[in-house]
Amino acid sequence: MTGEPALRDGVTLVLGGARSGKSGFAERLVAGSGLDPVYVATAQIFDEEMRERIVHHRALRGAEWRLVEEHDALESVLLREAIAGQAVLVDCLTLWVTNLMLAEADIRARSFALLDALGACAGPVVLVANEVGLGIVPDNKMARDFRDHAGRLNQEIAAHADTVHFLAAGLPLTLKG
Amino acid sequence: MTGEPALRDGVTLVLGGARSGKSGFAERLVAGSGLDPVYVATAQIFDEEMRERIVHHRALRGAEWRLVEEHDALESVLLREAIAGQAVLVDCLTLWVTNLMLAEADIRARSFALLDALGACAGPVVLVANEVGLGIVPDNKMARDFRDHAGRLNQEIAAHADTVHFLAAGLPLTLKG
Amino acid sequence: MTGEPALRDGVTLVLGGARSGKSGFAERLVAGSGLDPVYVATAQIFDEEMRERIVHHRALRGAEWRLVEEHDALESVLLREAIAGQAVLVDCLTLWVTNLMLAEADIRARSFALLDALGACAGPVVLVANEVGLGIVPDNKMARDFRDHAGRLNQEIAAHADTVHFLAAGLPLTLKG
Repeated sequence: MTGEPALRDGVTLVLGGARSGKSGFAERLVAGSGLDPVYVATAQIFDEEMRERIVHHRALRGAEWRLVEEHDALESVLLREAIAGQAVLVDCLTLWVTNLMLAEADIRARSFALLDALGACAGPVVLVANEVGLGIVPDNKMARDFRDHAGRLNQEIAAHADTVHFLAAGLPLTLKG
Repeated sequence: MTGEPALRDGVTLVLGGARSGKSGFAERLVAGSGLDPVYVATAQIFDEEMRERIVHHRALRGAEWRLVEEHDALESVLLREAIAGQAVLVDCLTLWVTNLMLAEADIRARSFALLDALGACAGPVVLVANEVGLGIVPDNKMARDFRDHAGRLNQEIAAHADTVHFLAAGLPLTLKG
Repeated sequence: MTGEPALRDGVTLVLGGARSGKSGFAERLVAGSGLDPVYVATAQIFDEEMRERIVHHRALRGAEWRLVEEHDALESVLLREAIAGQAVLVDCLTLWVTNLMLAEADIRARSFALLDALGACAGPVVLVANEVGLGIVPDNKMARDFRDHAGRLNQEIAAHADTVHFLAAGLPLTLKG
């Protein structure tokens, strides 16, 4: 993919909608870095449909990737894995927010803890996140709360990040960096 | 916020999704202008959830803001408030469209009246609007009609505006100006 | 519309949400090219609401447009119509995906056939497509599948296209080309 952006130091946020190509773009960023790639999967597998999506994504990545599954303690995983010589991809922040909501965790406190952890990382981190606020207001309160939590975290990570890309139809638009 | 755009003369449209940071961005534009800031709130308060959102937003603004609540006659408020020495923020156009729909007003006629009023303003105006058309087609006709009305007004204001910013995760992308 | 992009050779993708102005922008691209404009409508008319939208769109175009209605065999229409001296507008790809889903067609096979046809076109083609993945995850499986199919096709067409514009509030943002 000639002309695509290269991985930069620090924190990169890759934002996009469903099927925007954000995970594939983030994977190419990390894989092209020459660093050892670590894939941090935040998905909890609840049903066959989700399992299929995950298996499909895994098959698209190469064998050089190390897989870490962590649906909750993302902060400590980042501190442990984002070290010199490694590049960490977190896919995705929005599922992590979903997990925190399901676990009735204190999302504000955990968001601050995540920002602290990102500030302490020694290697580059790429975070994939969904933009979910561009449709009609959802009918139910839980979906509206989710939209608030996910959007607020995206803003905080974007403010902290060194680089922010927005993906549409697989094409990146650099919003920051 | 170094490097953020400054308020320009004329009409500025700030577009974005829910929790995209569009209101905060628009407030910083106006607050940084050195002009007396006027906040025009179009929200009608129907329930506790909405009241909480409004109180939260108000607390984030400073005491130097003058508040005008107007959920219907936006045109005359603009003509009265957008005068030399003042900068007006309208938050938001999309709630105004919702109000007009609930009141069964003639939305096309009111949209033209709003454009006329904007053309006659002597001071800068910043309008915040939601982009709501980037999700799945809604199931119910009223939501589809709302999406049409809101989207059409956004296009008309954007065509008229001197400056248009699109916000994602708190980061502005200048589409015009 | 001074300053708007001009039609370029090859394949142009115009992406946007509902009421983003994408069809109007695509029509101006084609109409301004000096070539004979051909409008390929993929809509199937199921109800009065859809008929009204179509009649409204038709009335906005001029009499110089030739209309081809084809809700299924888009590939052969492109091969027949995208010839020297003509410029073809397909409105829209996303309705075509919907049609294929309703017909239980093999969407992957048809997407590849479409890409092949686009590669063989002798005249410029402008494809309009909806971005539908930027809202909350839909409740029902069919809507999620649709979002996957539409998003995947958008990515494939965008990778193949020479030019990609994203529309918001009627304003184009060039993502490629």
